[in-house]
Amino acid sequence: MAFFTEPKTERYRMVSRAATGNSTVIDVGGVKIGEGYFPVISGPCSVESEEQVIAIAKSIKAGGAKILRGGAFKPRTSPYDFQGMQAEGLELLSLAKRETGLPIISEIMNQSQIGLFEDVDIVQIGARNMQNFDLLKAVGSLKKPVLLKRGLANTIEELLMSAEYIVASGNPNVILCERGIRTFESMTRNTLDLSAVILLKQKSHLPVIADPSHAAGIRSLVAPLAKGIMAVGADGIMIETHNNPANALCDGAQSLDLEQFNDLMKDLKKRAELEGKEI
Amino acid sequence: MAFFTEPKTERYRMVSRAATGNSTVIDVGGVKIGEGYFPVISGPCSVESEEQVIAIAKSIKAGGAKILRGGAFKPRTSPYDFQGMQAEGLELLSLAKRETGLPIISEIMNQSQIGLFEDVDIVQIGARNMQNFDLLKAVGSLKKPVLLKRGLANTIEELLMSAEYIVASGNPNVILCERGIRTFESMTRNTLDLSAVILLKQKSHLPVIADPSHAAGIRSLVAPLAKGIMAVGADGIMIETHNNPANALCDGAQSLDLEQFNDLMKDLKKRAELEGKEI
Amino acid sequence: MAFFTEPKTERYRMVSRAATGNSTVIDVGGVKIGEGYFPVISGPCSVESEEQVIAIAKSIKAGGAKILRGGAFKPRTSPYDFQGMQAEGLELLSLAKRETGLPIISEIMNQSQIGLFEDVDIVQIGARNMQNFDLLKAVGSLKKPVLLKRGLANTIEELLMSAEYIVASGNPNVILCERGIRTFESMTRNTLDLSAVILLKQKSHLPVIADPSHAAGIRSLVAPLAKGIMAVGADGIMIETHNNPANALCDGAQSLDLEQFNDLMKDLKKRAELEGKEI
Amino acid sequence: MAFFTEPKTERYRMVSRAATGNSTVIDVGGVKIGEGYFPVISGPCSVESEEQVIAIAKSIKAGGAKILRGGAFKPRTSPYDFQGMQAEGLELLSLAKRETGLPIISEIMNQSQIGLFEDVDIVQIGARNMQNFDLLKAVGSLKKPVLLKRGLANTIEELLMSAEYIVASGNPNVILCERGIRTFESMTRNTLDLSAVILLKQKSHLPVIADPSHAAGIRSLVAPLAKGIMAVGADGIMIETHNNPANALCDGAQSLDLEQFNDLMKDLKKRAELEGKEI
Repeated sequence: MAFFTEPKTERYRMVSRAATGNSTVIDVGGVKIGEGYFPVISGPCSVESEEQVIAIAKSIKAGGAKILRGGAFKPRTSPYDFQGMQAEGLELLSLAKRETGLPIISEIMNQSQIGLFEDVDIVQIGARNMQNFDLLKAVGSLKKPVLLKRGLANTIEELLMSAEYIVASGNPNVILCERGIRTFESMTRNTLDLSAVILLKQKSHLPVIADPSHAAGIRSLVAPLAKGIMAVGADGIMIETHNNPANALCDGAQSLDLEQFNDLMKDLKKRAELEGKEI
Repeated sequence: MAFFTEPKTERYRMVSRAATGNSTVIDVGGVKIGEGYFPVISGPCSVESEEQVIAIAKSIKAGGAKILRGGAFKPRTSPYDFQGMQAEGLELLSLAKRETGLPIISEIMNQSQIGLFEDVDIVQIGARNMQNFDLLKAVGSLKKPVLLKRGLANTIEELLMSAEYIVASGNPNVILCERGIRTFESMTRNTLDLSAVILLKQKSHLPVIADPSHAAGIRSLVAPLAKGIMAVGADGIMIETHNNPANALCDGAQSLDLEQFNDLMKDLKKRAELEGKEI
Repeated sequence: MAFFTEPKTERYRMVSRAATGNSTVIDVGGVKIGEGYFPVISGPCSVESEEQVIAIAKSIKAGGAKILRGGAFKPRTSPYDFQGMQAEGLELLSLAKRETGLPIISEIMNQSQIGLFEDVDIVQIGARNMQNFDLLKAVGSLKKPVLLKRGLANTIEELLMSAEYIVASGNPNVILCERGIRTFESMTRNTLDLSAVILLKQKSHLPVIADPSHAAGIRSLVAPLAKGIMAVGADGIMIETHNNPANALCDGAQSLDLEQFNDLMKDLKKRAELEGKEI
Repeated sequence: MAFFTEPKTERYRMVSRAATGNSTVIDVGGVKIGEGYFPVISGPCSVESEEQVIAIAKSIKAGGAKILRGGAFKPRTSPYDFQGMQAEGLELLSLAKRETGLPIISEIMNQSQIGLFEDVDIVQIGARNMQNFDLLKAVGSLKKPVLLKRGLANTIEELLMSAEYIVASGNPNVILCERGIRTFESMTRNTLDLSAVILLKQKSHLPVIADPSHAAGIRSLVAPLAKGIMAVGADGIMIETHNNPANALCDGAQSLDLEQFNDLMKDLKKRAELEGKEI
């Protein structure tokens, strides 16, 4: 009896490592994501204001981040929580992109929003939408890269199958992202599964990154996890930063402040050298 | 440290038991769902043909089922699996409704499909979409009942918060459904959490039903689980049936055949008497 | 890849249903446990004093309980928590047995304690010791029944394998007990897995009971879960009771008081009639 | 409601970081385990013969391992699986210790075996015995170091509480070991929780190591996980090796062969330099 292993290997034939001779390297406005590279994606959980997003973008760019993240449409457990600045948030991200030259990534929550994401360089599918198959098909019709986060209760095989939905719909530019799974452990927000990063790279030719911020939910774990993420062979990382974590409108407890981020970047640069990776 | 309990109780204030004097009883074309009732919802995983859905509908109606279920849009792990008959499937369900008089329920996968669900009596939000917040808001604008299934990795509190999204968007007719959570146990498809049924009824005024078919994934568990579901106090049940399970296009291994279903109904009717419930 | 299913079915050949023509019915001082019976085992988490254990034993006997439980050696997460009355606790249980005629069950924590359990009718192996294989072998050399609780993270197959250890060591009198598994849900202490009760009975000839008290950890869930446990076909139940739950030295929040227990017994007796079981 | 967080922080006061000014460094026959060091413990799952254990011990010593592991008493899910060479296995380990000078570690399964472990330098408590409290108390009376593995379903707090049992019983020399927890993911044997390594070091002064072999259950994951383990700040690592993995009596699929181990050691030595750790 093996309920979780139902999908046969050949079912994710387009994203399977066997499908190509090489590892896929995706180019996002000149930034490479894939084998041999370790781009750092960073920025706030939510875009909150022009001042906030510009200040963060400039600081992380100086520190070495290659891509700016920022939430505009926010999936929140409670309807009474801040739902993001929405379209206005995307405009502020675009502004930060023009100011800094950093490509931008933001989460899409449903296919009717696609038109708003024209200036967004990477469209993110969040963990809760990993098996929103209509959304996967919709972003499969785009030309731009899609970052696909693993669901909280989804197996490695299911993540590959969801990536297959996007690629089979016509978009080969998928980046996989491990961000922690839900387990019985309650001292962390989720349990980061670094074995998944390794297995995803063994089984698929797609780039694989990890997100220590959502996995841990605790600021003091982010830097050590980031080092572990690079050491196991991930192709990049996504880290939440904020210019004022104590007053962040969401996820402040897991966000690095700008100085902490820059300190971490210095450390990661030394490590990237050892790994032979371009950071 | 208590990451799962972040949402405060008052955050689901509209669905909270404290919000009303009574338990909510929802009327679906004359069928009551709520305290004092135990309607049985049944039908195939997928609508496959006119013959199939009519045969099943007539048989289960004769057995005592009150509502017909049937999947038209199917969320499937693999893009290469049967994705459902879609709009045509909904038409066949409508046909079965006219033939038998049974109200119908079917799963919606995204808000653009709402127009197709006009003749559908209960709109189902599947487990994978429990935190598809835009879809929750969209069905919150409907007048018809919504069946909200618990996600595979979602807590009881998160289910209540998702129900709150629908109610806060204007639709008070929400039915909660426990359908098993994902655990380490691999002998069953999921682990049915009957404590959740009890707690949901203690904490909320909404009707609570359970789905033993998806929880177990094994036909031989469905009847004993159905008895357990009634005994713990659920307000109804949803059971997959098929006129030819061995050749079902999806989930055949967990579907009862029509005779098994009718045998189970006879048993449940005796038990409903003991419980003082109208089945 | 299927790590949990490594043990082959034939590895639990002695406890397998295929091993015998019948279901095993175990006799404990005249009380039958097995197919056709539904004995209720009850008593305090910990034996605390002569007054306490005698008062509880008399009350639950009057209510219809058939076996008295009481912890003497207590496995506690913290070394600074009450560790049980130990040998003295067993003596008080024996006293209650003489006063009421109820057979007694208590948990053994290591094999050096076996001598102290001479007057104990059923030796309990707790969840944390389900894979303490040396202890399993040791109780396998006894003649008296052993109640084997499922571990918090143990599969159904592993529970059967642990039972096989005891039977293969010479003791065929094993009672299996589902008591909840550890999942991500934090509103209950554990998640009661009633599918496991059904599967254990399908796969093994051994009696299978369930413990709603430890599973739920919340008093208000115990009665509804007890009804569910009987309805799915369990061969008995173990329920914690206390004459003063608010001041219990352990697990007071999940213990029924004596009146609640007797009310539940009245309900269970009616249900046993419907099930055709001797309670 | 927070069932997992019941134990108060002060309950593990002796192992808490607040209890001492420094990190504890344990000396095992000249080998240091604790902050600033990264000893590699290696050897076979089971001692199988003199030839096997000597060959492995010599090879891993040459490669840079500092401590030899070898199972003599084996906790096996099935009573029909190889249960280890037992006392004879310990004698062969002692022989390998005399031949190579490597300190040895082996798992104890119950307190009656303590006399046999006189020549064993570190006594290991396996994952299944993490809450075998009588065994914890028993090894708490020893003077030699104890390696305490995290249980498959035990929280970080529970691991600290179990360590507290040992320290409170008089033995301060406890080494904590993360070895993977049980989750829904079935592609790996367990899910290695590297956040736990970081949190254990933040919360306790005890040394913390990790075991990638049991966590992953797959040979190809061991080397990348080992790098991750060092990068997050662990104080050491335990890796299974075998001179002939294809014919190992247990856990061959997760064992490195001797050449793979030595290749990994070369890589780890470079990394230890970057970390400023003595390997």
